[in-house]
Amino acid sequence: MTNAAELRQYERIIIGIDPGTNVMGYGLLGVISKKPVMIAMGVIELNKFESHYLRLRRIYERVAMLVDQYLPDEMAIEAPFFGKNLQSMLKLGRAQGVAMAAALAHDVPIAEYEPRKIKMAITGNGAASKQQVSDMLHRILAMPPDSTKMKLDATDALAAALCHFYESGKPLASHKCSSWKEFIAKNPDRIK
Amino acid sequence: MTNAAELRQYERIIIGIDPGTNVMGYGLLGVISKKPVMIAMGVIELNKFESHYLRLRRIYERVAMLVDQYLPDEMAIEAPFFGKNLQSMLKLGRAQGVAMAAALAHDVPIAEYEPRKIKMAITGNGAASKQQVSDMLHRILAMPPDSTKMKLDATDALAAALCHFYESGKPLASHKCSSWKEFIAKNPDRIK
Repeated sequence: MTNAAELRQYERIIIGIDPGTNVMGYGLLGVISKKPVMIAMGVIELNKFESHYLRLRRIYERVAMLVDQYLPDEMAIEAPFFGKNLQSMLKLGRAQGVAMAAALAHDVPIAEYEPRKIKMAITGNGAASKQQVSDMLHRILAMPPDSTKMKLDATDALAAALCHFYESGKPLASHKCSSWKEFIAKNPDRIK
Repeated sequence: MTNAAELRQYERIIIGIDPGTNVMGYGLLGVISKKPVMIAMGVIELNKFESHYLRLRRIYERVAMLVDQYLPDEMAIEAPFFGKNLQSMLKLGRAQGVAMAAALAHDVPIAEYEPRKIKMAITGNGAASKQQVSDMLHRILAMPPDSTKMKLDATDALAAALCHFYESGKPLASHKCSSWKEFIAKNPDRIK
């Protein structure tokens, strides 16, 4: 599907990851003449695996495969700073950890963004729905209509990559996640 | 230090991991004539790295190196089911995730144990101190006196490996972590 000659046309490739323990989305964004284009996107279905370890293993294998195949320059990861409970955060951290390990093992630097920041970067509204993010992505990247059927986990991942593209292009790039303290200060109602 | 001939004398090798974001402990346990012996132990210092990613990368690299060097049959990981807050659980999950990725990439199955379960298996007291666990380990494994200076994160990791050795030898091995619900039911005071 993708060969080395095809990949060489891109000045830069960003892999976006939307990690979850049920479905993990991924999106590959290329840059040609400083303009972002979609290279590939998809989801890693994890529901069929009952064991937590098999899920983690699948995430690691698939992300390592994507890194091998597309040789991305950077990884952008959607990283929520809150969760339902301690146990769900531990599981989410593990899913992120194995995906990150696949990037770190290949010297691919990682940037992480809060969901709100990604939505804001793509739609101008930090509270936009996944569908709104998807619709805007299709317009910005001039994606073919058949990709509108794509799962929203995949477009979310591509949105993380595009957010990173925008953020890293800023003169004073500050694409680091805001701190936990900052999050608590801004969202007192989100802490239970 | 360790060569293939030396490793072949062991019927089975278990790598124990005590993951943390400041210090990660590891311990290699070998089995000879059905008896456990200490092969190696140590810590991975992470404090010197300011960046969270550099820490995760170091964990992945060192665990992958240990797996390559000692070819363990199984990994036993100390996995607490509680934490100070959501953010610390996410970070702990990531540290566990990258360590697990190094094992999963080499087809090494993983078992996890709560700290209380490990302490109980080694000392008979689920609330034992790290020093008590270390002292008992030295007696059980007939470890040389100079290893008493070893950091307690390393002995904790070796304790996880020994716990797995005991648990997996039981006729009806049930070495899976008890569930989060079970934990909450047993430890209502630990939930904040």
